[in-house]
Amino acid sequence: MTLGPGVGRTLLPKGFFASGVNCGVRRYRPDIGLITSDYPAVAAAVYTLNSFPAAPVIYCKGILPSDNICAIVTNSGQANAATGALGIENNQLLVDAVAKELEVIGSQVLVASTGVIGHQLDMEKLLPSVTELVDRVTDTAEDFALAIMTTDLVPKTVSTTLVLSSGTVRLTGICKGSGMIHPNMATMLGYILTDVKLTTDEAQSYLKFAVDESFNMISVDGDSSTNDTVFLMANGATEVSLATSEDKAQFKEAIKQISISLAQSIAIDGEGATKLVEVQVKNAANLELARRVARSITISPLIKTAMHGEDPNWGRILARIGSEGVGEEVLPKLEISLQGFMIFKNGGPQSFVREDVKTALKRTKIEIEINFNSGSENATAWGCDLSKKYVEINTEYN
Amino acid sequence: MTLGPGVGRTLLPKGFFASGVNCGVRRYRPDIGLITSDYPAVAAAVYTLNSFPAAPVIYCKGILPSDNICAIVTNSGQANAATGALGIENNQLLVDAVAKELEVIGSQVLVASTGVIGHQLDMEKLLPSVTELVDRVTDTAEDFALAIMTTDLVPKTVSTTLVLSSGTVRLTGICKGSGMIHPNMATMLGYILTDVKLTTDEAQSYLKFAVDESFNMISVDGDSSTNDTVFLMANGATEVSLATSEDKAQFKEAIKQISISLAQSIAIDGEGATKLVEVQVKNAANLELARRVARSITISPLIKTAMHGEDPNWGRILARIGSEGVGEEVLPKLEISLQGFMIFKNGGPQSFVREDVKTALKRTKIEIEINFNSGSENATAWGCDLSKKYVEINTEYN
Repeated sequence: MTLGPGVGRTLLPKGFFASGVNCGVRRYRPDIGLITSDYPAVAAAVYTLNSFPAAPVIYCKGILPSDNICAIVTNSGQANAATGALGIENNQLLVDAVAKELEVIGSQVLVASTGVIGHQLDMEKLLPSVTELVDRVTDTAEDFALAIMTTDLVPKTVSTTLVLSSGTVRLTGICKGSGMIHPNMATMLGYILTDVKLTTDEAQSYLKFAVDESFNMISVDGDSSTNDTVFLMANGATEVSLATSEDKAQFKEAIKQISISLAQSIAIDGEGATKLVEVQVKNAANLELARRVARSITISPLIKTAMHGEDPNWGRILARIGSEGVGEEVLPKLEISLQGFMIFKNGGPQSFVREDVKTALKRTKIEIEINFNSGSENATAWGCDLSKKYVEINTEYN
Repeated sequence: MTLGPGVGRTLLPKGFFASGVNCGVRRYRPDIGLITSDYPAVAAAVYTLNSFPAAPVIYCKGILPSDNICAIVTNSGQANAATGALGIENNQLLVDAVAKELEVIGSQVLVASTGVIGHQLDMEKLLPSVTELVDRVTDTAEDFALAIMTTDLVPKTVSTTLVLSSGTVRLTGICKGSGMIHPNMATMLGYILTDVKLTTDEAQSYLKFAVDESFNMISVDGDSSTNDTVFLMANGATEVSLATSEDKAQFKEAIKQISISLAQSIAIDGEGATKLVEVQVKNAANLELARRVARSITISPLIKTAMHGEDPNWGRILARIGSEGVGEEVLPKLEISLQGFMIFKNGGPQSFVREDVKTALKRTKIEIEINFNSGSENATAWGCDLSKKYVEINTEYN
């Protein structure tokens, strides 16, 4: 499998089309995007765990999973979160406008929003743009990817084809978000489109699996936004289904890799980020522990600043592991390595040439490996470093 | 009760003495300190929850609570954490040297360490300083407070007297630490000394109560260090005990206030901090929830940067509350106010004059109030803002 370029001409799967236009909520940039499918698609989603989900999240939860979805519309700039009954109403108005233009029914249209929390959608700008949005769909992902960006620096897309037993299918992923905080918009949105034929159960279970290994393993500073959503749409346009167990395994791996690629693109586009930090936890006693420890390392400002400073400060990593309630008994077996250098083992620091590790830390990708040597569960998490630029972006935007 | 000045002449309770000297681990500043009591004292401690406690923490856990403590020695610069068997041995050598000089037995001497994790104590510098340390004790707290500082900008002391039914007693508090990350030393240490007469059970329970309301409610960025410890020593030198229920209530309030004062001094001395952020959660359904939400607000970089930017970005606060698993049903009753301005109520944003709130946010103390209106439990947490200076300190120290 070759993952396509993130920027450029990213093909959509067969039967899918997408667009993005400027409706005027933001000054110049495209701020509303549309994905359509000529074939009613099976669709599933995984949502934010935030107790105060935004109107579009509440709406999608009411519809999905479904085997009859034709479109996802997404606006950027206003999250339609904490907007009460009027927010729900506006969400429906947008759905209805898109459905009318596409000549489908409302429940075939999904919505996601990203932007400032607490502002009502500017319907006077959004609604009139729907005609243009439908008119301008193409078979590539870029216009949509640009339209859903908030403080992202780059649009995030990826595409791959799979040769299955009964034919070739395509998976295309699009997302927005940052591995770090956004001024008013901490939202991460993901869209995975495919022309393979899936049942709703398959769609839901493959998506859940892939999200747990990818989007749920990047740090968005401990806050889950009110709008986070990852969608999977499978329209079956190729009429190829997952006929064999090999097909299933291949598809499962592909959707995981697509998701990881998108998730990494979010982490490295974190505000002010200069490095991608990958934390691999190996041989943990259980999966929950492995994931918790991996994520905690990527979230720690203590470690993020050390990585920014290219400093082999392993004490910070050890202390963070210890603060995750791992139990004293793990210490003798614990191994920590940084850029491939073993720095902690057998309950004590290992001697290493500090300058060599410092040189290795100059690389753009930082690899931290934590081996518990006490089980068989592994997890990988991604984050970024913490720079002064990050603080600048987040304090001086108003 | 008047809390004494943090800097200046902070009197120790009767029978307590303290000192601080430079032993050479650090270039100029005092780096080892000693507290002694002429009367064997009741002592208790509350420790870090980190799974990898430092050697001095393991040592103190083995001794406390006790009714026969004469001294606490504390070195700064080396945490004696992740130092294995040799670390335990070195800790005992330091204990023995202090005990010998004070003519007491080893188990009457406590230890705390703060500094770089993973380095062995420099015994050749520490041990020879013990004689001078014992010689130079005075009845004030400043020298000790200076000796235990790491990246703290100011020494942190507080003292008060209480008139109880059978006499007057004094409580003096000393601490070190920062509401934010420290380069190599994230440790918070606290010492509360009093000349009242307590039982070990009283000491343990008053200390636990006070720590839960104070030190456990300040943000040290989610990492609990390997060395965090708060000690209480009560030497009974005044021969005054807590004879009445009024005495007990008065003492309980005083130890709480001393602890809160020390905890606040840590938060406001956070690296790069320009503001103290106080978060009050009111009328929550349970205490655990109230504390969790209050702390989460002080930890969020999203909110810390907004407060630094003096921006009334209430969406960030709402999203953070929602990400703490509070349940959707709390939204209609939830009220959020910022510097006294009601900004969220009845499930929706309240209209406020943005410029007025921005002006109020220029104050050094930021007050965020979150009212759940669904129970009777309250909690207060303290933190600080997040500035570029913070990142500078933490990336450029090496």
